[in-house]
Amino acid sequence: MANSNKKNDAITSRDEDFAQWYTDVCRKAELMDYSSVKGFIDYLPYSYAMWEEIQNYLNKRFKEDLHASNVYLPSVIPTSLFNKEKEHVEGFAPETLVATMGGGKKLDDPLVIRPTSEILFSDLYKRLVSSYRDLPKCYNQWCSVVRWEKTTRPFLRGSEFLWQEGHCLFETEQEAIDNAIAARKVYEDLGKDLLAIPFLTGEKTEHERFAGAVHTYTIEALMHDGKTLQSGTSHYLGQGFAKAFGISYLGHENKLEAPHQTSWGVSTRLLGAVIMVHGDDNGLVLPPRIAPIQVVIIPIRMQTPGVLEACRKMVEVLKREGVRVYLDDDDSKTPGWKFAQYEMKGVPLRIEVGPRDLEKGEAVLTRRVDGLKQTAKIEEIEKEIPGVLEEIHEAMYQKALANLNAHIYEVSSVEELQKTLDEHGGFAKMPFCGDPECEDRLKEMTGGISTRCIAPDHVHEGTKCPCCGQEAKMVVYFGKAY
Amino acid sequence: MANSNKKNDAITSRDEDFAQWYTDVCRKAELMDYSSVKGFIDYLPYSYAMWEEIQNYLNKRFKEDLHASNVYLPSVIPTSLFNKEKEHVEGFAPETLVATMGGGKKLDDPLVIRPTSEILFSDLYKRLVSSYRDLPKCYNQWCSVVRWEKTTRPFLRGSEFLWQEGHCLFETEQEAIDNAIAARKVYEDLGKDLLAIPFLTGEKTEHERFAGAVHTYTIEALMHDGKTLQSGTSHYLGQGFAKAFGISYLGHENKLEAPHQTSWGVSTRLLGAVIMVHGDDNGLVLPPRIAPIQVVIIPIRMQTPGVLEACRKMVEVLKREGVRVYLDDDDSKTPGWKFAQYEMKGVPLRIEVGPRDLEKGEAVLTRRVDGLKQTAKIEEIEKEIPGVLEEIHEAMYQKALANLNAHIYEVSSVEELQKTLDEHGGFAKMPFCGDPECEDRLKEMTGGISTRCIAPDHVHEGTKCPCCGQEAKMVVYFGKAY
Repeated sequence: MANSNKKNDAITSRDEDFAQWYTDVCRKAELMDYSSVKGFIDYLPYSYAMWEEIQNYLNKRFKEDLHASNVYLPSVIPTSLFNKEKEHVEGFAPETLVATMGGGKKLDDPLVIRPTSEILFSDLYKRLVSSYRDLPKCYNQWCSVVRWEKTTRPFLRGSEFLWQEGHCLFETEQEAIDNAIAARKVYEDLGKDLLAIPFLTGEKTEHERFAGAVHTYTIEALMHDGKTLQSGTSHYLGQGFAKAFGISYLGHENKLEAPHQTSWGVSTRLLGAVIMVHGDDNGLVLPPRIAPIQVVIIPIRMQTPGVLEACRKMVEVLKREGVRVYLDDDDSKTPGWKFAQYEMKGVPLRIEVGPRDLEKGEAVLTRRVDGLKQTAKIEEIEKEIPGVLEEIHEAMYQKALANLNAHIYEVSSVEELQKTLDEHGGFAKMPFCGDPECEDRLKEMTGGISTRCIAPDHVHEGTKCPCCGQEAKMVVYFGKAY
Repeated sequence: MANSNKKNDAITSRDEDFAQWYTDVCRKAELMDYSSVKGFIDYLPYSYAMWEEIQNYLNKRFKEDLHASNVYLPSVIPTSLFNKEKEHVEGFAPETLVATMGGGKKLDDPLVIRPTSEILFSDLYKRLVSSYRDLPKCYNQWCSVVRWEKTTRPFLRGSEFLWQEGHCLFETEQEAIDNAIAARKVYEDLGKDLLAIPFLTGEKTEHERFAGAVHTYTIEALMHDGKTLQSGTSHYLGQGFAKAFGISYLGHENKLEAPHQTSWGVSTRLLGAVIMVHGDDNGLVLPPRIAPIQVVIIPIRMQTPGVLEACRKMVEVLKREGVRVYLDDDDSKTPGWKFAQYEMKGVPLRIEVGPRDLEKGEAVLTRRVDGLKQTAKIEEIEKEIPGVLEEIHEAMYQKALANLNAHIYEVSSVEELQKTLDEHGGFAKMPFCGDPECEDRLKEMTGGISTRCIAPDHVHEGTKCPCCGQEAKMVVYFGKAY
């Protein structure tokens, strides 16, 4: 076994086969199951509950920071409407699922199952917006989208996934760009506040832009295997959709104007990031704020009078404090089995209480992230635990941040780029021309290295693009992406 | 104009044309918009926010009362799987939307867009359940479903609607039936606690049962026009799906057994019930607990120093109390216009403050449900309002309950049944044989009167079914249903 600390034989070790480790964790921790519908998964309670925590956080922030209201639009788009915005349809058409029969009859205008809803929002806004007084308009939708994928992986790439999509209209370009950047900031905060994941953020190059966007902003995370994961994007769409769909409003100067549009979204892919950033050879490691079970209580020698009573009392007082706590009092399983089980499920904190602890009025706390043990007075457990969970969150975030920072490199040639990412993974900064064709060549040449986002760095005058020799126009973070 | 109290000319009066009144309210109050996708609607923020309140209430109750966890399953069902349960497929096949093309290629096994998910839950449970220790299993899903409808009406009948569907497995028939009845009880409480709607509840006759169910339980509401609305159902499915999909478990006696199954659901149809139970000629009347805006504050002569400041202070203290309050300080509109506007939008309580009120330190409160006015000390407004909102909820529920009770009739012949429902609407109780064919004939004969649910009444021996003359086996509530 590659790692001597590994306690769960059902899970492949990460260094042996990271892809298999990932699949093992997804299945054994009961996050998902493979559906009978090829390419689709069942989101089981243990992952769905985390998605609900993400929803709660974002709903609050969308309302407060982005003044967005939730709506629900149809799950299907008529082909005739779908074909209106040229760039967009070219981007999405190859991966659509299309309904051609309704109520037993062939449809005149087949329906595309939504892969994203720029089109339907544009169509709605055309009907709702007629004056500058109707702007800004900012709606968000929680739904599933379907993209017909050839190869799929749980949470990372699938034929159907859950997401939110915000769609906003503004009078000016500046307001719209500010909104797209503010949305990215909300996602960054989601990482820091809830998922304990630091993101590298920036603008996408032309090659990696969303189909139909003028600017695409991204949040990129670093996985344990050194690969990167695009975890959310926000787009400034310009006036292209507005013009294609005929959205116009009477402006302050009594002239018809086209509004400036944005869209932004994150998906259940974030759950894949949580698994791959924090997980270890014993399974999941969940950040406390999204963990469905934050604290598991495991009684030792539970037949001894007083032990179970003390555990039940702790459950009661912790629940009252809003802690998601679970007592495993199944007497057909040993404490050792339970330790391994809840480690595998990534429960952030374990509390053990046995007869000897009880005599001292103490419980033993063990942190999932680093195995750190401490004791706490049983009488004051409800005062202790919330703080311990905060500390665990912070420890997880700092650990992930240190890992991210340790894997950001500067390189100046394609060879060096390749060597660095092959050996260490992570993000490598390099000057770049920005040309989509050069980017295509680089990707092919390196077996899949792609630009992740533009770095804030200044390009020195006269610097050449190490790939094509043209003038470098930007410094770009490269990575091997999921 | 039919009603001299009517203040909003944009809304047809209810007695003139109830269907048009309904459509007017849906549009003018910005609850929905007709989508460009024929038969589909856009759920706008004002209705979606109410759906979210329903979700919050039900999520809590499902967890506490029914021990259900949320999951998400695919939105499509392979035709080969769909065809496995005969009765079920016969019930749903005529109204399905079917995808036949994926990623540009013809699909070997076309995909039905889910009209309901008994099949996918059965398929999942087959994989998850193998021992009695895996039972009970109780998952719930929030999603949209698609049913290809020829005629549609906002919230009441549409090609796509939002709903929740709970699916549970139990060892015994009794546990499963208890679960189906407990789910109906949660829905009844939702009506009483949140929507201020009393329901008539009971079991469906064989004719009205869900496709594939052994027992179907229902909640039925009475609309202002005398028609009834089936507002939610729960089903005991027996072992039919389990056998068709091969779900089995090793029981306590070490034998393979088929579990007993239930399913239960409510949809955005409930919003249609809220509109048609409570609305009046001036528009919507919303029960406070789901109203997106519970209190609107309208300043009078807002240029007078102190008026706006007092209003803003009230917003602040009310928000702190958790009241959903909105201050309309738009100076381009008159208070009169605003009064009519927020009445139309059904805001439960209006607060006015003008210079003279301010001198007295008072605000004028007006209840939407009955126009009742009262004054409250501005200084103590945050203590007053929550209680006033409770009173409004109770007044709305009692009003709806009185209307329901006043429209329950006993009849003993088909002629009397027809005459009673034609003249008064509501629910008419009549002995009945329970035969689905007799029910079909009755429906045709009466131009659409149908059984709503079985009444708890005892049938006197020797009573004949007034429709077919066979022995009456039950007393049934009849109505004209949406």
